[in-house]
Amino acid sequence: MLKVSIAPDGKEYALPTPEDSAKEREILTQITIEQRKLGRKIVAVQGLGFVGCVMATVVADAEDSNGKPIYYVHGHQRASGRSFWKIPVINSGVAPVSSSDPEVPAIFNRCVVEKKNFRATSEDYVYELVDVVVVDIQLDATKPAFGEAEKGYCDISAFREGIRTLGKHIKPECLILVETTVPPGTCEKVVKPIIEEEFTKRGIDIIANPPLIAHSYERVMPGAKYVASIRDFWRVFSGINQKSIDLCRAFLTDVLNVENFPLTQLDHTNASELSKVMENSYRATNIALTLEWAKFAEQIGVDIFKVRDAIRKRKGTHDNLLRPSLGVGGYCLTKDPVLANWSMGALFGLEGSLDVAIRSVNINDTMPLHTIELIEAEYENILNLKITILGVSYLEDLGDTRHSPTKTLVEFLRKDLALVRVHDPYVEYWAELEEIKVLNNLADALAGAEVVVMAVGHAEYHAIKPQDLVAMCGTKPLIIDCSNFFDDAKIKQYLALGCKVKGIGKGHISQL
Amino acid sequence: MLKVSIAPDGKEYALPTPEDSAKEREILTQITIEQRKLGRKIVAVQGLGFVGCVMATVVADAEDSNGKPIYYVHGHQRASGRSFWKIPVINSGVAPVSSSDPEVPAIFNRCVVEKKNFRATSEDYVYELVDVVVVDIQLDATKPAFGEAEKGYCDISAFREGIRTLGKHIKPECLILVETTVPPGTCEKVVKPIIEEEFTKRGIDIIANPPLIAHSYERVMPGAKYVASIRDFWRVFSGINQKSIDLCRAFLTDVLNVENFPLTQLDHTNASELSKVMENSYRATNIALTLEWAKFAEQIGVDIFKVRDAIRKRKGTHDNLLRPSLGVGGYCLTKDPVLANWSMGALFGLEGSLDVAIRSVNINDTMPLHTIELIEAEYENILNLKITILGVSYLEDLGDTRHSPTKTLVEFLRKDLALVRVHDPYVEYWAELEEIKVLNNLADALAGAEVVVMAVGHAEYHAIKPQDLVAMCGTKPLIIDCSNFFDDAKIKQYLALGCKVKGIGKGHISQL
Repeated sequence: MLKVSIAPDGKEYALPTPEDSAKEREILTQITIEQRKLGRKIVAVQGLGFVGCVMATVVADAEDSNGKPIYYVHGHQRASGRSFWKIPVINSGVAPVSSSDPEVPAIFNRCVVEKKNFRATSEDYVYELVDVVVVDIQLDATKPAFGEAEKGYCDISAFREGIRTLGKHIKPECLILVETTVPPGTCEKVVKPIIEEEFTKRGIDIIANPPLIAHSYERVMPGAKYVASIRDFWRVFSGINQKSIDLCRAFLTDVLNVENFPLTQLDHTNASELSKVMENSYRATNIALTLEWAKFAEQIGVDIFKVRDAIRKRKGTHDNLLRPSLGVGGYCLTKDPVLANWSMGALFGLEGSLDVAIRSVNINDTMPLHTIELIEAEYENILNLKITILGVSYLEDLGDTRHSPTKTLVEFLRKDLALVRVHDPYVEYWAELEEIKVLNNLADALAGAEVVVMAVGHAEYHAIKPQDLVAMCGTKPLIIDCSNFFDDAKIKQYLALGCKVKGIGKGHISQL
Repeated sequence: MLKVSIAPDGKEYALPTPEDSAKEREILTQITIEQRKLGRKIVAVQGLGFVGCVMATVVADAEDSNGKPIYYVHGHQRASGRSFWKIPVINSGVAPVSSSDPEVPAIFNRCVVEKKNFRATSEDYVYELVDVVVVDIQLDATKPAFGEAEKGYCDISAFREGIRTLGKHIKPECLILVETTVPPGTCEKVVKPIIEEEFTKRGIDIIANPPLIAHSYERVMPGAKYVASIRDFWRVFSGINQKSIDLCRAFLTDVLNVENFPLTQLDHTNASELSKVMENSYRATNIALTLEWAKFAEQIGVDIFKVRDAIRKRKGTHDNLLRPSLGVGGYCLTKDPVLANWSMGALFGLEGSLDVAIRSVNINDTMPLHTIELIEAEYENILNLKITILGVSYLEDLGDTRHSPTKTLVEFLRKDLALVRVHDPYVEYWAELEEIKVLNNLADALAGAEVVVMAVGHAEYHAIKPQDLVAMCGTKPLIIDCSNFFDDAKIKQYLALGCKVKGIGKGHISQL
């Protein structure tokens, strides 16, 4: 049986045979010899996910003062059915992620095809050849019960295995730079012991050759500035010993725009690990607060978005205030507080919990149910109710569906047997809810809809004219504005067309 | 028996007799006639507390394009033993509040003595004479159980009585501008019905003369920019009808620096009332988050202040992140979430609560107990332990002791019979804890101390040199740094002197 990996475009790639692997290892050896001759240092990026694949290109793209590449970069991805396809795709000069940032395809082409200093492989052998490994293995939190993030935990077995692979292969003087968002304590209590154990097995004296482990977290923002959010942005780092700190600083200084965005060094890997998850917990808490107040505002005739604008006038003290919406999605805000809370007990053996952050995750995770409440205030029974949801991704003008709040909304609506259709201009295939067909044509999605949920603030949705939406529906639907799509003038237009309009945090509609 | 009001400086002022009142009413009439001749509008400010007395001067100080005062201002304060003294003090040209802002004494002198368009009175009759009343009556939340803000409520009887007084006296065309921070719904559900009731009793047709009620909240910051924080800052306002909105906008445009800080109008008084308490709930929540993470940081060897600095590098999205400290005090952050939470049920009859904000208040209110935990980790029994606390006020370089977290700290330490001394350079008399003598001499406060709690970040405390502090103690005390007083170099100095040092959020000390 031929094992294959299927790319999102449907193309199949055969997984490597032992012969392929042997040949690949020869290629890797050959590349290393050539690249060392060119004076380049060799880097591996472990894990070619959302961060790793672009980080790899940023490293490869770094040049010295003579305009010559400083590093040769091997992207490493395991030869799994789910992900192996990324390797041939990258090696053809194509990005394995789609993005609205034009720099993404450009930088892949530049490094793979023009500069020829970035290449992907699935061979663990590559780690024997490198000076630096940037760890970008995915590390998820599991929330076993809906709305009970306090029960959340982190299964770090795959991460541990990835680190063990490094311990088995890397040279003692290789720097391990962990870029994955990890539970605080991971470098010290997980990575270091594993590397020491594997070094010891290999006969490496860990007193003379203490492992070199650093941590620096990315602050990647998907969207139009994807590459810049890695390269041209403030970085925090730390290391488990002075040599790790020095090597990490030198590496980051080579590859990032530290002139405009100076590095911040923290005392300890615990500190930089904590910093990352606290950053995102801050935002998660901030949103949870706005969600509670949005619901209050709805009940007392207040438009929370105008209130938010009024509050945010106070720059530097109040302008971080985020906005309410259907709910909170994405990879970071939904899990990082859980990573931190879990680490307290699991990695440090401490009692207690990070209550504010964890309760905020619960408020955020359950927020999509509020949109169902708004629907049910009009329709007592939603059985067979024709509901169209506009927007599947977790962020506007992006096709990223990870932990999208629309998923929660759809699941609960379907439980009550509503007839749900979903539309998104950026999503072809909804990986997390495969059984749902995502429509890309608005007219198909809206025809006959009794309820239209404006879920995600895609520009295409903002541009819809009220008369066109109503015409596409062929009904006078209840419209739920989850993301401040409508100003008062537009709401009045919908009302004049005979629609009912409600909105998250838009209590003032009843007075219009 | 002569009734008197005693000023903070100990001077006694006789409360007015009926004869005094009759004479005062004549004076008020006379002033009104004269001032109207000068073309000035007449304003009353109801309540000469922390906001009202300075707001009154800001109104009086407002000039037209010819440099002439636009308004004559009557400050009104009831003739109570607790507050009457403010009237003669103000009328002598002296501010009834002490402040580090040099503009405070200057503006009182300028308006009372030079421009002669600001005067204080205790006669309700004054309200019959005015075009605008600015309401600055104090409105407190009561938290009947420590650490259970969810049980908090708001006793609005005194506020209602103040509004009723206006209803009995004002002309129908007088604008009532509520500046007090109130539970959302107050203008619509409390102020308006009372005024309508009193107008109706007086035979005023409330259909032809609907009450004119507006709301605009101040964002006063005590300290060096006290006056500017009222005059030169963004304002939010709203009104219960169009005429109220128009009058309010015109008034605020006259008296505030709206050219540099444009006004923001919201749709409804509910909205502007909610905006104010949400602003402060945002900050209260922000601090509660940092307190939880500070405790975590302490346990895993991390300096949370360095982490905070790293996070705050992200301007516009993360730079509102506040810092942990002994606890949260002052008049706003401790009560405003309670006002909002109470109003949900009491004014709107709604179920539910503002959980994130209320839990944050509880975390903040109970935070001073954490400092006791830090002490008790060193001293199992604090009976007779000599503990000196540096700082009584709730904010650095200010003498304001309202809801100071030091009060909670002192009360709990005394419960366990520790020997507590407190010091503050700005506090002579601690109104909320009268039985405690506040020392103003550091040497007296520190002699023999076994524990020194650096509670409030007054500049004087920042300037203390480690060898001087230890010499004043004559011991090698345990020092608790509650407010990031010490950088690493200073901590090392204290350690070298034989002291133990701990700090809120300063888990890294054990590694120094």
